[in-house]
Amino acid sequence: MIDPRVASGLRDILPSEMIARERMLAAFRQTFASFGYVPIDTPHIERMEVLTGKGAGSDEVLRQIFEVTNKGGKPGELALRFDLTVPLARFVAKHLNELGLPFKRYAIGSVFRGERPAKGRFREFMQCDFDTVGTISSIADVETIQVIYEALTAVGVPAFTITLSDRRILDGLLDIFGVVDKSGPVLRALDKLAKVGSEKVRAELQPLLPEFLVQKIFTIIEHGRGGPEVLDRANTEVYSQTGNSNSQSGINRLRRILELLDAAGVPQDRLKIDLGLTRGLDYYTGIVFETTVNGWEQYGSVSSGGRYGNLWRLFTDRPLSGVGGSIGLDRLLAVMRETGWRQGTSTMVPVLVARFQEVDEGIPVKLGARLRGAGVGAEVFPDAYPLGLQMSYGSSRGHKLGVIVGPDEVGREVFNLRDLATRQEQKAIPWAELEPAVKRALGMEP
Amino acid sequence: MIDPRVASGLRDILPSEMIARERMLAAFRQTFASFGYVPIDTPHIERMEVLTGKGAGSDEVLRQIFEVTNKGGKPGELALRFDLTVPLARFVAKHLNELGLPFKRYAIGSVFRGERPAKGRFREFMQCDFDTVGTISSIADVETIQVIYEALTAVGVPAFTITLSDRRILDGLLDIFGVVDKSGPVLRALDKLAKVGSEKVRAELQPLLPEFLVQKIFTIIEHGRGGPEVLDRANTEVYSQTGNSNSQSGINRLRRILELLDAAGVPQDRLKIDLGLTRGLDYYTGIVFETTVNGWEQYGSVSSGGRYGNLWRLFTDRPLSGVGGSIGLDRLLAVMRETGWRQGTSTMVPVLVARFQEVDEGIPVKLGARLRGAGVGAEVFPDAYPLGLQMSYGSSRGHKLGVIVGPDEVGREVFNLRDLATRQEQKAIPWAELEPAVKRALGMEP
Repeated sequence: MIDPRVASGLRDILPSEMIARERMLAAFRQTFASFGYVPIDTPHIERMEVLTGKGAGSDEVLRQIFEVTNKGGKPGELALRFDLTVPLARFVAKHLNELGLPFKRYAIGSVFRGERPAKGRFREFMQCDFDTVGTISSIADVETIQVIYEALTAVGVPAFTITLSDRRILDGLLDIFGVVDKSGPVLRALDKLAKVGSEKVRAELQPLLPEFLVQKIFTIIEHGRGGPEVLDRANTEVYSQTGNSNSQSGINRLRRILELLDAAGVPQDRLKIDLGLTRGLDYYTGIVFETTVNGWEQYGSVSSGGRYGNLWRLFTDRPLSGVGGSIGLDRLLAVMRETGWRQGTSTMVPVLVARFQEVDEGIPVKLGARLRGAGVGAEVFPDAYPLGLQMSYGSSRGHKLGVIVGPDEVGREVFNLRDLATRQEQKAIPWAELEPAVKRALGMEP
Repeated sequence: MIDPRVASGLRDILPSEMIARERMLAAFRQTFASFGYVPIDTPHIERMEVLTGKGAGSDEVLRQIFEVTNKGGKPGELALRFDLTVPLARFVAKHLNELGLPFKRYAIGSVFRGERPAKGRFREFMQCDFDTVGTISSIADVETIQVIYEALTAVGVPAFTITLSDRRILDGLLDIFGVVDKSGPVLRALDKLAKVGSEKVRAELQPLLPEFLVQKIFTIIEHGRGGPEVLDRANTEVYSQTGNSNSQSGINRLRRILELLDAAGVPQDRLKIDLGLTRGLDYYTGIVFETTVNGWEQYGSVSSGGRYGNLWRLFTDRPLSGVGGSIGLDRLLAVMRETGWRQGTSTMVPVLVARFQEVDEGIPVKLGARLRGAGVGAEVFPDAYPLGLQMSYGSSRGHKLGVIVGPDEVGREVFNLRDLATRQEQKAIPWAELEPAVKRALGMEP
């Protein structure tokens, strides 16, 4: 006998969890599509050099790569993708001529990282990415934020905050003091501020920058959290002191984005500026953002992204800017579960059709088909088990109604309708009234 | 520079193809769910012994396995799944107590086989499986066929034929003549009948069976193709001559299934009996079926399956029967493309919002948000390129309407509405009438 366990760090997803995931993914797809993003797919397996070519992957991620070999294949040639960003870069470079620009795509799929197994951390997890490639327009930045607002609203997150910054503001400051070459390590250090605290970040910055500049950065960040007024302050503290046009571009872009989000109907109280937000990844070159669920900030960001420059430089010499975001499906599901915003269910249909032993199988089959034909999902219990067993199957899974055909009813062409929560039963409803009676009981028209 | 190609035998899926796939998958999910099947997911990576444990995988499939290793992991321990059947068997054995019975699941996901690359054959492809576990009821058999009928109808296949048989009919015949131990190789040989012709199959059967029995099998098969009358003939030719109860069970089950499918409203002309249909896989023990698109039979079966016994015997000693089917997404898409039943499109939204240079970005952003709020997908072109460029972006992708805000219109709060196919334009529609004007032009209410 073989142990039916999954390998370390992997997991099975059971129906109640998977139903919630599928509903969330359907809402995301619908949101992405409504803005004109189109789906693409790339293989789970990529050529090793595509993944390890010092593109988007950090050293840590590259150490976690899963290699893939088949009989007759050479080792070291193939591997499982660790994100959807590197495949996007390769895809864009390969298909640029067929796609045309701008190119707006979304991709939803599993990625693989051989991390040390830990609670809530898995070696295979799902990413939901959407990007606009080939334009530097503010509209593309704004739509990225709109999509997150619409997607989280669509899945029922009651309150969340999208925090925005633009990397160019601090980059311009470093530039004017001749240390823009330190931008990578400085912004990566600042990215850890919320996690490790200012003392540790300060200690990390001190060997990189003169003390006055460390002090200045901390002042800008302290003054840099809030609404649109923060941008006026930044204009005074950064741009007017440095005259750096990169800093000014960042400030102006953020101001423009807030105006356009207002025009788009995104409520201002969903948005926050935080100039200390930098995102750890080196490829960002413009706006960056993160999203936290109000009251559940300790779970971290459920959706983040930003504008990037030459993501594809390994694969093509054509320069292209892009902007995009990624929604953390697993983290969002975990928050929704903790908060109780998500009702558990193990069925996707409201009706269970049951029968007594004496009733011909053709009757529940016919009644089930009629309900589905009327747009009401219906499961037919396959066996004529004792009624209590059939009904407890339904109520334990979350079916709302039982349509019961018993031996007394069959000659008379009637059925009983049971509310599986209250156990109340309407008796002897004629078959002819099946669809309206069920719809009425479910609160659907008519 | 790194070549952005995918590895041999793998592929990128571009938007026009992926939109068709996603629509098909959404229709399948909706159909599976409406019958009470619930989604599950299992990892792409399984432990090697789970996959190679002589369960469902043929020797050929096992030779094609992709091995997976990460740094620090031992070689030979992990591999990519080659189907969704072995993972189902493992999943059922592992979670039986939590799931309860009957358990109806569907699973949609990529599987991997290191086949020799060939046209139209890929090393990663998608399977869409649905199964009912833990009941021998005819209703479960019938629902499997109903799902295929509803799913193919939902995606717009105009005419198809579901061919049915029951393995027990020929098995019973072999049993009565003392050669039931040859059942595996005999049924596998017959499975190739359509592909290689009767001469080759006869040659393969001759070393296994006495000549009179080969002759008898061929007679039964020849007489065994058609409607319900075929079952009466089988009753005379097989059951009444052999008295084998297995044969009788198979004949009776097929007759019952045809009756119940009629009750369920599945048209009889979609169904065909073919007693020569056996399916190659050894785990089938009852009904088996295949589905071909009328006029496109040369593409092979687009959906097949059957009833099986101890699929999980490697993982649990609890005996359980199951029945299920699998829809071949790629094959179906290929047929739909060839026949022209599928219209190509590279967008999922009907409207493209465009603007002239002089128009503030906030206007298209606001109009786009209003359309989406009214349930009309709308893409905003991000840059104020020459109008011809923006419109040809839309018409090449399949957008139906252009909402155009030009410099003359902006002070007056009006827009032009262009039909991108006919190029006809309604001019100077007030912004206030945006939603009804667009809906009217798209043929939506009002």
